[in-house]
Amino acid sequence: MDAFTSGPVSYLELVAVFVAAVSGGLAAVRRRFDAFGVLVLAWVTGLGGGILRDVLIGDTPPVGISSWRLVTAALAAGVIIFFFHPGLERMRRSILVLDAAALALFVLQGTTKSLGLDAGILASVVVGVLTAVGGGVLRDVLVGEVPLVFADRQLYAVPALVGAGLTAALWSAGVLEVWTALAVVALVFGFRIVSLARGWTVPHPGPGWTARWGRRSGKM
Amino acid sequence: MDAFTSGPVSYLELVAVFVAAVSGGLAAVRRRFDAFGVLVLAWVTGLGGGILRDVLIGDTPPVGISSWRLVTAALAAGVIIFFFHPGLERMRRSILVLDAAALALFVLQGTTKSLGLDAGILASVVVGVLTAVGGGVLRDVLVGEVPLVFADRQLYAVPALVGAGLTAALWSAGVLEVWTALAVVALVFGFRIVSLARGWTVPHPGPGWTARWGRRSGKM
Amino acid sequence: MDAFTSGPVSYLELVAVFVAAVSGGLAAVRRRFDAFGVLVLAWVTGLGGGILRDVLIGDTPPVGISSWRLVTAALAAGVIIFFFHPGLERMRRSILVLDAAALALFVLQGTTKSLGLDAGILASVVVGVLTAVGGGVLRDVLVGEVPLVFADRQLYAVPALVGAGLTAALWSAGVLEVWTALAVVALVFGFRIVSLARGWTVPHPGPGWTARWGRRSGKM
Repeated sequence: MDAFTSGPVSYLELVAVFVAAVSGGLAAVRRRFDAFGVLVLAWVTGLGGGILRDVLIGDTPPVGISSWRLVTAALAAGVIIFFFHPGLERMRRSILVLDAAALALFVLQGTTKSLGLDAGILASVVVGVLTAVGGGVLRDVLVGEVPLVFADRQLYAVPALVGAGLTAALWSAGVLEVWTALAVVALVFGFRIVSLARGWTVPHPGPGWTARWGRRSGKM
Repeated sequence: MDAFTSGPVSYLELVAVFVAAVSGGLAAVRRRFDAFGVLVLAWVTGLGGGILRDVLIGDTPPVGISSWRLVTAALAAGVIIFFFHPGLERMRRSILVLDAAALALFVLQGTTKSLGLDAGILASVVVGVLTAVGGGVLRDVLVGEVPLVFADRQLYAVPALVGAGLTAALWSAGVLEVWTALAVVALVFGFRIVSLARGWTVPHPGPGWTARWGRRSGKM
Repeated sequence: MDAFTSGPVSYLELVAVFVAAVSGGLAAVRRRFDAFGVLVLAWVTGLGGGILRDVLIGDTPPVGISSWRLVTAALAAGVIIFFFHPGLERMRRSILVLDAAALALFVLQGTTKSLGLDAGILASVVVGVLTAVGGGVLRDVLVGEVPLVFADRQLYAVPALVGAGLTAALWSAGVLEVWTALAVVALVFGFRIVSLARGWTVPHPGPGWTARWGRRSGKM
């Protein structure tokens, strides 16, 4: 699986970090953060998921603070946002598509790295999802908002979970190769894009089910 | 101290995780989180304290992301909350009692694990308390609230601190065995329950003392 | 560089922790936290930056939970705040000066420790800054506020960044000794104090630049 840490795929990782960092920089601008705040939010959003992953699987220092390439990609996004944010706000639709690609790449890369370090199937699936959604959660907490991924009902974490589970299954079966890995990426990306286009949602804990169940059985 | 990681006591740990996870799931429902948010909050609240403990003492990956039993216990709480939350909201009083038991078990188990990994007395007491209260702090931060344990004046962390200190003292004296450990659990549980029943509170930094002190000595 | 972990300089570290912890305790009092909350906020603010540093560079358990001296310094600040907070609120100006000294010491010590553990230049600069600003970020998140360091436009993180970069440069050149290190501390301290006195600010992502750029080029 070296193809994921060197060669063409590693450039995709830089793009994924950059795109995620853009969303962090924009959140910082909206909250009227200063230049330092914009750069930190870009860094935390672009690389925070991977930092949580590396801390949890014991691979310290995390690449998110030690890799010049990755840190540069995140800070570059912050600098660009700082100067050109109104333009980027208007590119929201394109950013959503790029973000779906970043989601897919983060899931594959996070799960694969963790499996390779013998963290086990379950922990690898968890940190695979965390690599993809952790940066956004840190971003939202740092700007004082409830994490979007927990409440917006969008299918964001669900494609990540499917991708992480599939990656782990392919790895267990000994068939996680470049082509199967790219199929996982394509699947997560496609699942996310179709969810967006069709407006699919995660269910809500409405009173519905319980009310019906309550009516059937009296009271709990 | 193997009795705490296998055998009957380990089932108690599952119950403790489940009970803590219930409080996380309920907080998520109250904030109108979606299904993914409810499951994550249950997981973070049930296992977050132990995850912080394991990261701090360097035992990675933390059991909170690698143990099928523990993760299943937390997610089961999330699923049950998702469907039956109104009923569980009404069971608040029973949950308080179960939560006191969870507090006691988490303290014993967190402190003991840390001592066993040679983290030292002080660090073990700190992570013992953190195992018990850390999940709730993460829950409150993720739903956008100030952590209850810092401000509600209840004796929640204080029994935990007493229990962690006592566990460390017994361990230092070489007399931490099953029976002394169960006595610690009983003491923490009893202390918490009596505090609840009598409405005992942690003091507040009121203006009182300083005002009096100021009157005596002019000004500071 | 042993002079920084023993001897006179190590007493300065205790002072730095105490001063940072004071700001945490005051934030807790303002939010009406109880005694436990005040102590925890003092501890998290005084030692949280170092705890994040140690977790990121894999030096567990962090000194912030295992060193009696450091934990005592932080909790002493919490106890003093609990009883005498109105007086300390009035000493705000003196606290700002002491806090600038703490900033300088934390940066030097965090960067040096990380370099000594072979974390690499980039990671060491990052955790050097984090040692200095991390405690305040955790404090603000725990009291439900947006981290001041991201948005108040003060030159707080910038002197830290300059100091961490300089420390790493001196270390790379093999000339990080007691006198050069003290020069770094003096520089960071002076930079911070002069910034405060002159009211220097970090730029804001105002509409300015983009608007001008937009006018020149039509639209993006």
